[in-house]
Amino acid sequence: MSPISASQSPVTVVGLGLMGHALAAAFLASGHPTTVWNRSAAKAGDLVAGGATLAGSIKSAVEASPLVVVCVSDYDAVRALLDPVASSLAGRTLVNLTTASSTQARETAGWAAKIGSAYLDGAILALPQAIGTAQATVLYAGPKAAFEEHEVTLRALGESGAVYLDEDHGLSALYDMSVLSIMWGVLNGFLQGAALLGTANVKASTFAALATTAINVTTGYVSAYARQIDEGAYPAADATIAVHVGGMEHLVQESEVLGVNAEVPKLFLELATRAAAGGRADDSYAALIEQFRNPAV
Amino acid sequence: MSPISASQSPVTVVGLGLMGHALAAAFLASGHPTTVWNRSAAKAGDLVAGGATLAGSIKSAVEASPLVVVCVSDYDAVRALLDPVASSLAGRTLVNLTTASSTQARETAGWAAKIGSAYLDGAILALPQAIGTAQATVLYAGPKAAFEEHEVTLRALGESGAVYLDEDHGLSALYDMSVLSIMWGVLNGFLQGAALLGTANVKASTFAALATTAINVTTGYVSAYARQIDEGAYPAADATIAVHVGGMEHLVQESEVLGVNAEVPKLFLELATRAAAGGRADDSYAALIEQFRNPAV
Repeated sequence: MSPISASQSPVTVVGLGLMGHALAAAFLASGHPTTVWNRSAAKAGDLVAGGATLAGSIKSAVEASPLVVVCVSDYDAVRALLDPVASSLAGRTLVNLTTASSTQARETAGWAAKIGSAYLDGAILALPQAIGTAQATVLYAGPKAAFEEHEVTLRALGESGAVYLDEDHGLSALYDMSVLSIMWGVLNGFLQGAALLGTANVKASTFAALATTAINVTTGYVSAYARQIDEGAYPAADATIAVHVGGMEHLVQESEVLGVNAEVPKLFLELATRAAAGGRADDSYAALIEQFRNPAV
Repeated sequence: MSPISASQSPVTVVGLGLMGHALAAAFLASGHPTTVWNRSAAKAGDLVAGGATLAGSIKSAVEASPLVVVCVSDYDAVRALLDPVASSLAGRTLVNLTTASSTQARETAGWAAKIGSAYLDGAILALPQAIGTAQATVLYAGPKAAFEEHEVTLRALGESGAVYLDEDHGLSALYDMSVLSIMWGVLNGFLQGAALLGTANVKASTFAALATTAINVTTGYVSAYARQIDEGAYPAADATIAVHVGGMEHLVQESEVLGVNAEVPKLFLELATRAAAGGRADDSYAALIEQFRNPAV
């Protein structure tokens, strides 16, 4: 633990669940005077032993620091806790790291603006045990000036992982969901393949090497497809959607014949078939964005 | 084009569609005496101009080389072409690069064994224009001795991309489908995120950078999960399936509220919910393999 220096700004952490506790511990470890508050004070025990100050009330917790970080179960809890101390939050920066939707984040920003608090909505792309390490990324959305004012303090949660996104408060939640969407896509694609190969007694570990190569090759396509999406034009420099449809039909059949779950391949085939039927058969895979943009009819 | 040397073994290519034509051109460019045959001889024009020999019949095509590579529309076409010349194939190596299912590949291997031909079933993980370049990977399954005998010739299709898998002839088709499954998983995960962020006017190109990081981070999980799958034990060193279910619920809600397609997130949620209900709530994501192994009930 570094010694506390005058340059280290005080910070308050409200909510000491698994994640809130990890946040407070990381601020403390970086030498920031850290005030904590939790509905059940017992959870603050080891933090207080490590140098944190346990506030006697949510009001005194908020008033102890220019930066208040809140991480509780949901946004109803955020408002229930902070509404009564709205006047104390005026003039301070509130960083909300509670998981939420973009709508909730934008609503909370409206509330914070009314009470005169600078508001940053954040999304933590890390598990509690990674907080404070190089593996922790935290995304922030809201007024850039507020982020820059407290950036040094926020870097205690992950030195290179404090990422400022945009003034739109909804973006931390949207990026959070978008990143998770990719993660599940990669993992489920791998599990489908591992299940198929498992029917021939190929170990998942054996598949993992080629899977990694396949993922890396596909990642190369992402940037090119992103440009096509932004331009709204999808010339097929590689396989057309018609070719993908043919491949997906093979994957569905192979899965069904081998008695493996075919639900994911079937849905992918349905989306690609819709795109082809909608006039995109000869376009690149990027044209499928039109299917993802619109709810199923 | 390299000069033909005595060390370069003759090869016959049957089928000159887009892919077959690319295969023949690559063998020719590597200096292999190349004989070609196609139902419509016109497609051989530029290959013959480049030094290939156009066989007058499928029989003389097969008899021209110790290695016969076939790439046609489907396996019915393979058998229709080669059944009449089965006696000519005896003692030669047949490499079938026609797209097929693992069942078809294994059936064809049985047929080849009866006629006394060494049989390799292959899957091309490349577009025709990539054949012969460092980007082309071709997977081979069947007798290892046959692969090794012709490996130098087969490397003309992609110097570092000739991958021998296994004696089980079904594996080239299974690996092909498994790799495509991952590719579609990555791309659809990206498109879901790009659609979500698009509602806040974030460009897909802007998202692509963070998306690439997310894919790379996820790739790191694949090997660890593969080991758990092989061991059949899924201790949650990171997020539990219950935590993933919570995240997926957020993604479904976010997609629905913003008017974006929620079909893929909903199916992912359904699979994870089934796993949790089946007793895997506190296990790692790898336990979802059990859902992928079994058809939906």
